[in-house]
Amino acid sequence: MPENEIAFLPDGKRVKIHDSLTVLEAVKLAGVDLVSVCGGKGTCHKCKIKIDPATFSPPLTENEEKSLTPMEKDEGIRLACQIKVSKNHLIVQIPEYSRTGKQRLQIEGIKTALEPDLMVKKYYLELPEPSLEDPRSDVDRIIQELNKQYKTKGLTIFSDLLKNIAPLLRQSNWQITVTVWNDTQIIAIEPGNTAKRIFGLALDIGTTKLAIYLLDMIRGEVLAVDSAMNPQIPYGEDIISRINYVSSPDKAQNSPELQQILVKQINELIDSLCEKSAVSVEEIYEMTAVGNTAMHHIFLNLNPKYLALAPYVPVIRGGINLKPKQMGIKINPTGNLYCLPVIAGYNGSDNVAVLLATEMYKRSELCLALDIGTNTEVALGNKEQLLVCSCASGPAFEGASIKFGMRAASGAIEHIQIDPSTLKCSYITIDSLPPRGICGSAIVDVIAELLKAGIIDVSGRMDKSIKSLYFREGSDGYEFILAPANETANGMDIVITQKDIRQILLAKAAMHTGTKLLMDELGITEKDIDTVFIAGAFGNYIDVANARFIGMYPEIDLSKVTLVGNAAGTGARMTLLSKKVRILAETISQQTKYVELAIKKNFQSIYLNSTFIPYADLTQYPETSIFLKKVGRFPLKLPHIF
Amino acid sequence: MPENEIAFLPDGKRVKIHDSLTVLEAVKLAGVDLVSVCGGKGTCHKCKIKIDPATFSPPLTENEEKSLTPMEKDEGIRLACQIKVSKNHLIVQIPEYSRTGKQRLQIEGIKTALEPDLMVKKYYLELPEPSLEDPRSDVDRIIQELNKQYKTKGLTIFSDLLKNIAPLLRQSNWQITVTVWNDTQIIAIEPGNTAKRIFGLALDIGTTKLAIYLLDMIRGEVLAVDSAMNPQIPYGEDIISRINYVSSPDKAQNSPELQQILVKQINELIDSLCEKSAVSVEEIYEMTAVGNTAMHHIFLNLNPKYLALAPYVPVIRGGINLKPKQMGIKINPTGNLYCLPVIAGYNGSDNVAVLLATEMYKRSELCLALDIGTNTEVALGNKEQLLVCSCASGPAFEGASIKFGMRAASGAIEHIQIDPSTLKCSYITIDSLPPRGICGSAIVDVIAELLKAGIIDVSGRMDKSIKSLYFREGSDGYEFILAPANETANGMDIVITQKDIRQILLAKAAMHTGTKLLMDELGITEKDIDTVFIAGAFGNYIDVANARFIGMYPEIDLSKVTLVGNAAGTGARMTLLSKKVRILAETISQQTKYVELAIKKNFQSIYLNSTFIPYADLTQYPETSIFLKKVGRFPLKLPHIF
Repeated sequence: MPENEIAFLPDGKRVKIHDSLTVLEAVKLAGVDLVSVCGGKGTCHKCKIKIDPATFSPPLTENEEKSLTPMEKDEGIRLACQIKVSKNHLIVQIPEYSRTGKQRLQIEGIKTALEPDLMVKKYYLELPEPSLEDPRSDVDRIIQELNKQYKTKGLTIFSDLLKNIAPLLRQSNWQITVTVWNDTQIIAIEPGNTAKRIFGLALDIGTTKLAIYLLDMIRGEVLAVDSAMNPQIPYGEDIISRINYVSSPDKAQNSPELQQILVKQINELIDSLCEKSAVSVEEIYEMTAVGNTAMHHIFLNLNPKYLALAPYVPVIRGGINLKPKQMGIKINPTGNLYCLPVIAGYNGSDNVAVLLATEMYKRSELCLALDIGTNTEVALGNKEQLLVCSCASGPAFEGASIKFGMRAASGAIEHIQIDPSTLKCSYITIDSLPPRGICGSAIVDVIAELLKAGIIDVSGRMDKSIKSLYFREGSDGYEFILAPANETANGMDIVITQKDIRQILLAKAAMHTGTKLLMDELGITEKDIDTVFIAGAFGNYIDVANARFIGMYPEIDLSKVTLVGNAAGTGARMTLLSKKVRILAETISQQTKYVELAIKKNFQSIYLNSTFIPYADLTQYPETSIFLKKVGRFPLKLPHIF
Repeated sequence: MPENEIAFLPDGKRVKIHDSLTVLEAVKLAGVDLVSVCGGKGTCHKCKIKIDPATFSPPLTENEEKSLTPMEKDEGIRLACQIKVSKNHLIVQIPEYSRTGKQRLQIEGIKTALEPDLMVKKYYLELPEPSLEDPRSDVDRIIQELNKQYKTKGLTIFSDLLKNIAPLLRQSNWQITVTVWNDTQIIAIEPGNTAKRIFGLALDIGTTKLAIYLLDMIRGEVLAVDSAMNPQIPYGEDIISRINYVSSPDKAQNSPELQQILVKQINELIDSLCEKSAVSVEEIYEMTAVGNTAMHHIFLNLNPKYLALAPYVPVIRGGINLKPKQMGIKINPTGNLYCLPVIAGYNGSDNVAVLLATEMYKRSELCLALDIGTNTEVALGNKEQLLVCSCASGPAFEGASIKFGMRAASGAIEHIQIDPSTLKCSYITIDSLPPRGICGSAIVDVIAELLKAGIIDVSGRMDKSIKSLYFREGSDGYEFILAPANETANGMDIVITQKDIRQILLAKAAMHTGTKLLMDELGITEKDIDTVFIAGAFGNYIDVANARFIGMYPEIDLSKVTLVGNAAGTGARMTLLSKKVRILAETISQQTKYVELAIKKNFQSIYLNSTFIPYADLTQYPETSIFLKKVGRFPLKLPHIF
């Protein structure tokens, strides 16, 4: 049987296979990252790949005919499981959206039109050789030729480069590529012409998760994305415990431990991204980083102690440029690391990035943005003014602090439905694998479905009188079975407990309170809001109707709600690609008004009211009230409104 | 007998003595640095000290009456050897000019009127404490208050400071002093008010010697000066051998050894200066450094290899600002080290400093400057244009490569005279101690006196026919005894050998050639030169008439010749005190024309002619010719003119 070679882009991995195999089987042999939920049955339509129709174009299968759009067909998009490889030297491209990453990550977020305006530029130079008539210094020669050929001005050179310039120029036969940062400083000199290779990283440091993107900065494209749990979690799931660990009073100095393990994890992610994309770490000249203010401080080795004490003062608000070497970050050591500005002690640079990505700062319509994470940041406003606040929602929606919570990885239950008559729960898992736990989007569904099925009431209390196979008293109190042991990956019942429900309601109450108080501050009601952006790791996967039903946000028309995924990551990528966006970030950080919720006199009452589903005062939820009545769950006794 | 305490300023050293002793004796007991050539006889008038007349004012002695100027008398200047200490708690000030340093060093050089215009400024701030109404970040608070109180603008903060700001502000009760560099960057934050303490260092890295000055930058005064031999000497006395050592082909990388021992020596000098002046290294925020291009490259760890190969290209010409930490220099680690720009491969930043100190760049009259060292740099021109060249004169005039040569330290013969009838040599030594060797100024005299006495002819050849106690054949050929063994410190005859004479003539020939060729380049003769500056470590001590007589420089009217001492050090100090001078340094470095002597077609002939005393073509030395005729040393046979 003839052997055919397939090369996979952009990884560059190659494999030789017999022509009886499908591209999907080749993918598995080559160890290439490609989504396939149904495992090759042709039913999930996820394993989309791209093959240049000019090189190889077998007829479309029935499955492909019905699942691909005409545009996809024109572009050469195919389903990997449907194509047999009957051609030698086939080149297969795996589009970014067909990759799984290590876990499901929202990498696209909002598509924002961005004029490339790089901080880092490269110039190829062929220098005249020195002579007794032209004995200019090496540096003068380079800078003067750059000025002459490329109209640069006022360039200086980063002093670390001076050491090796002399031999480098002579060994490269006076043909070099010069990397210039911010049109002011030469930060790298390489032999030969490398002008087309400029790579950058955008990093989002969440309390619970890290997400990192490798970009081809010239093409403005994401080459690869990776993520990991924040390795600081063992030192405390929440921000306060980590701050206390870093600045505990029995240590004279900041404890550098949390910074070091974080940097180590980031370096591992960088290595893996580089390997995947055939990029050398030396070719990464720029990195941008966002995170909440505590993560920002710990990452930068700043003392975070006063973030946790009123009046919650950060060490620095403005953006910071650092040499990667200084931080131990393994990209080009003479490159640059830009940490975006923060807004306040509890509104970090991740929030600035969300504002950049949603472009709220330049919109006329009134926008609300929720960036859901361990801390949920709420922003409200438009180009006239922007208010932000921060809510300690806890990590419930990230799958932490919930008995069977997990992150959105293979085998996570991502959506559920409960049959009100049988109380049987049906579910969908990521990659259609046996369930291992429940992730954020299903956690939203669970509350909605439990209420609709009458298992809980609007206060979240379970109805102990229910008799059902799926409802029982367990070791942690009452619990409801979402997936029975015989269906699960670990042979255990996957349940939701009364305690879990309490956690979830406290989390959603926190964000609801933040939104309500910002609306008060601006003197508006939900009717005045034109657009809602929901950001966060699970962004694109939650059911916005269920989210509104449980009261994660006020009753705003669902057509106004947009899921924007990891908008913080999007903002970090925009900042990586554009100097103008960087200036914008500084302006946003300066001009956005931080609202301190804890000192609002109605904070406590709104918070307690928000722990109800969707809210204690149902007059503010007319549509939801009608629905509750329809499904027979409108409370007989209205909750006490505080 | 009552005991009196004397405190010496600026060192702060104290000693208790009986009132029968003089201040000079107290000085010796206290180990304080004070010049005393006659050892207390009252004849040298060097041991000048200052005592506030309001505190203690015994009548002037006869010696003081005749040796002090009326102004000195008014100021309280006294001779330490003349005053007995009959007062408790006496405060005695040692003016800078009365200190010896470790060796005699020209620290004053030219006095140049300089408006203080510091790179480093300090601002004292009392900050408002943060509150929930004013939760600005620590950095915003500092920068905004600086802007408000001191009208600063666009300040950034050096990232290394961020780590400790938070606890520092709170421990100092929000009262701090902020140090700003170049009106752009905050480089230090200190608790309390330290605004009056800003210190700086100026360093002159010679091939043979280092000189370093500690300045009170606010008062613009030198507090202390120190010097040491360049510790690289064991790796080669001349520049070429050091360059070869650093960049020898069997090493892949620069050898860092020479840089490291240099920095170690500099740090020792800094420690000693700080101790003498009660200044902490943390209070030194700025340092300037000058040196020839090879010293500059080795100090900065730049590859010096191509300095030694035609076309003698330096790595960098412009000035460089570095963090001291980067260099291992132990001043405030967040301070700044500025290495002045160089001109070319063989005209370094020491030369730029000489041009700054002599102000040749702004004079209308035509000036010639010789900076005599292991390499002698010659500059010629005025505000219209400046030419420079470099001559490999070797270290003869620094006392090296001469059998009994030594540097200008205690016991060095600094001037000699030979009685033409007896051929007995009389001499003066530094500090009137028994002679240990001869230093630069005496080396100039030796050639002149040997010729006048007829021991050598104009070609420098010793007359072997001489019969004298002081002339003989030794192990190194013919030699003349300057000081007999029974008078010397080490019990050996101090002699000058035929070989020494050859070395000295080659050295003076090199500088003479440089001057002649620059004059050719400019199309002028010695008559057109209005001013001659002679700089270098021995600057103020040489006999300019003898120097001209032996042909160190062309026959220019002696009234036009000024000794300017260590002008390179002066230029480094000026650059330390003034931003404007720093900009000037860059302009001078760019606009000064370097003349490559080796490619001049008449280089060889002028050089050979210059090895004669004063020069082969005596028509260019009419005054000297008359003198030679008068003392009977006009050559019977004129030397062959090449």
